[in-house]
Amino acid sequence: MNAPILDSILAQVRTALERNNLSQAAKLIEKLRPADQAEVFSELDEDEQLALLTELPVEESADILEELDEDEAAELIEAMHPTEAIRIVDGMEPDEAADLLGDLPPEQASEMLAHLEDSDEVRPLLLHADDSAGGLMTSEFLALRRRTTAAAAIQALRDWKPDRENIYYLFVVDAEQKLRGVISLRDLVIADPDTPLEEIMDTDVIAVQAGIDQEEAARVMTRYDLLALPVIDDTGKLLGVITIDDVVDVLEDEASEDIQRLGGSEPLDKAYLNTGIFSMTRKRIGWLLMLFLTATLTGSVMRFFQDELQAVVALSIFVPLLIGTGGNAGSQTTAIIIRALAVGEIDWHDALKVWWKEERTGLVLGLGMAIAAYIRAITWEPNPALALTVATSIIGIVLWATGIGSLLPLVAAKLKIDPTVVSGPVMSTLVDATGLFIYFSIARVMLGL
Amino acid sequence: MNAPILDSILAQVRTALERNNLSQAAKLIEKLRPADQAEVFSELDEDEQLALLTELPVEESADILEELDEDEAAELIEAMHPTEAIRIVDGMEPDEAADLLGDLPPEQASEMLAHLEDSDEVRPLLLHADDSAGGLMTSEFLALRRRTTAAAAIQALRDWKPDRENIYYLFVVDAEQKLRGVISLRDLVIADPDTPLEEIMDTDVIAVQAGIDQEEAARVMTRYDLLALPVIDDTGKLLGVITIDDVVDVLEDEASEDIQRLGGSEPLDKAYLNTGIFSMTRKRIGWLLMLFLTATLTGSVMRFFQDELQAVVALSIFVPLLIGTGGNAGSQTTAIIIRALAVGEIDWHDALKVWWKEERTGLVLGLGMAIAAYIRAITWEPNPALALTVATSIIGIVLWATGIGSLLPLVAAKLKIDPTVVSGPVMSTLVDATGLFIYFSIARVMLGL
Repeated sequence: MNAPILDSILAQVRTALERNNLSQAAKLIEKLRPADQAEVFSELDEDEQLALLTELPVEESADILEELDEDEAAELIEAMHPTEAIRIVDGMEPDEAADLLGDLPPEQASEMLAHLEDSDEVRPLLLHADDSAGGLMTSEFLALRRRTTAAAAIQALRDWKPDRENIYYLFVVDAEQKLRGVISLRDLVIADPDTPLEEIMDTDVIAVQAGIDQEEAARVMTRYDLLALPVIDDTGKLLGVITIDDVVDVLEDEASEDIQRLGGSEPLDKAYLNTGIFSMTRKRIGWLLMLFLTATLTGSVMRFFQDELQAVVALSIFVPLLIGTGGNAGSQTTAIIIRALAVGEIDWHDALKVWWKEERTGLVLGLGMAIAAYIRAITWEPNPALALTVATSIIGIVLWATGIGSLLPLVAAKLKIDPTVVSGPVMSTLVDATGLFIYFSIARVMLGL
Repeated sequence: MNAPILDSILAQVRTALERNNLSQAAKLIEKLRPADQAEVFSELDEDEQLALLTELPVEESADILEELDEDEAAELIEAMHPTEAIRIVDGMEPDEAADLLGDLPPEQASEMLAHLEDSDEVRPLLLHADDSAGGLMTSEFLALRRRTTAAAAIQALRDWKPDRENIYYLFVVDAEQKLRGVISLRDLVIADPDTPLEEIMDTDVIAVQAGIDQEEAARVMTRYDLLALPVIDDTGKLLGVITIDDVVDVLEDEASEDIQRLGGSEPLDKAYLNTGIFSMTRKRIGWLLMLFLTATLTGSVMRFFQDELQAVVALSIFVPLLIGTGGNAGSQTTAIIIRALAVGEIDWHDALKVWWKEERTGLVLGLGMAIAAYIRAITWEPNPALALTVATSIIGIVLWATGIGSLLPLVAAKLKIDPTVVSGPVMSTLVDATGLFIYFSIARVMLGL
């Protein structure tokens, strides 16, 4: 639904709330889809939100909490009457409920867990790290035995009535709950009703261990175009299922984190507009200070060459140009390499190939930039030796920047450090100091300082 | 499948090909899943690839072409015998076939289209821009009438046997093919067999027009957790369906483009390792030159203040520090804002709110950085007036950078320019020149130059 319509509904909800007409406000929200409900909802004050959550049917309230930011949802549940909170959390999907409990104070979480009807489904999910495949999976799935017929499987599906609408695979397990096969709902529907599942199931199942990183699980699903991915323990027992809608969220979040890190900030925990000034500052000041410290390196290089600067003041005019070009060439490389790593196009084994490709690209780029730099320098200061110094330096700096820019992320990935951490700003600051060193060294020789 | 296993299969395929045992090589590849087939396949030489495509069963060859980079696939089809090429393209899904035809020389494309069995399905897809919802949709869908019973619908599905496995919605249309409702396969399966579709269908269908941007369609699907999104024309007639697997690819590609643009390069057309040196240079030299030109602005500012630099050479030592901090603060802001725009958390209407949040964040960040800068300056040069100049400048520069960094992407989005284009490097270069201007102006006053 587009923004103007939602804005007008929000206005109507507010009017209803001002008139203390809670049921009218609830009715307006009920008509919306969950994502829209959450958008309107998060514009309201907390006491209005609490009142509405109590007024709305429990499934609607549960849907809204699932769509809200996790911290926002946790705050509301904390502020709510316990009986009411338990009723709503019981209406949530087990994986969402588990995530929410993880964000509550431990005593409140265990108190709630003790009273949940679905606690058997939620409890095992709490054992897995939030960012692992186990933390992403739901425990709602249908597992049948291999001699079950297609007709009986469809009947089991009818009886089951899962909360979750988008379940399109059934799983076949043995007596020890070990995963043996998978059947898509489509194959089940078009099969002869009397066929046992073992004849139509696919035994070559792609599954992942509960402990692997959620991003890795997401990559498996996108690589093989899966709508659901079974999660198993180390004995092969089926623990849960990851569905494609959660994977899309994971991929989007990972891309957001990469982009924010490339910009030189720690990833935000919440949506932009929900992030406060101090949280925002906290995420950013660390990097700024670190980059400041490494930038003083660049200042130190300039201090080291103070005599040369004193002798030829014009040298300093080209500093921003050279620093800028080195940093830009380096961050082009890093951004491209980091993304290629993230989507799995390259890995550590390609390091030499990647470095060689970047050095050749760097050479062509450097030559192009050298021509531009020479022309710019000679028109600024009619001093051919100085112009040649600048042009030669820029080739060296671009080669250095593309080389470092390609190897740093690959080495980081090899050392299991997030490659975005060594990226963009960090890299350019490092390239700055060394780049100036290259520049002043060349100047010393060429200008005979 | 993990890399070492694929490497060993690649080695076996190569050995088989060296021994001219084409059928053995084909057998090895046939055992793999499409994504793995394509990975092994793209390591081979073009004549080996062509030989294998002819040897493999036509569905396998079609699967491989679908998984390959679009340009790679188009080159193979161009090099192939026309009869063989037509046979394979006929085995591809209509949307993939249409994309492939779009990458061929026009005469060859229309020649092939004339001979395709599926040409009726492919032709309408060619009318839509590659990056629109129409370009992304498939024309393979099942549309039934509202009085059809659940049992008849299941029978229709059985008779239909689509190529595509992951179709989990059926659509209900009227006599004019206008979209009237949607039913998930799950609801169909659990319904009483005699129920007419109109009683179980959801009439509140989310659909998009064929002309909208594919990224917008992808956002609609992720927002409402849809597995399939119907595409209609302006009269409401059902034209096709976008499925979630294509959407994941779109979101990944868009994130890649944003990351590459943020790094200051045009988005690459192909996977990293398939991009040649000259294509790589072409994507990058334009931005480097543009940034070089704007960086000369910074040089001009320094030339403008040459007398001040001559008087206090120590001023130049702090240039990289100030430029760096301004650029970093600005690119933090831009990256965060660009991502918030991309995922739809903010839009142009939030500009004032965003700017105000960034200015307040900038003030806190600037104060923190000012303390660090003062300490650094006073330890380098025991000159309190100079240190105060640097500290004051850094507050001004950070405020300026966060302000510009927040407004530029929003203004760009409002003007329908890709916000990443005004981002990262461009922004920092702009911030550099103005930042130095702020610095030298403050120095003039504080140091009485």
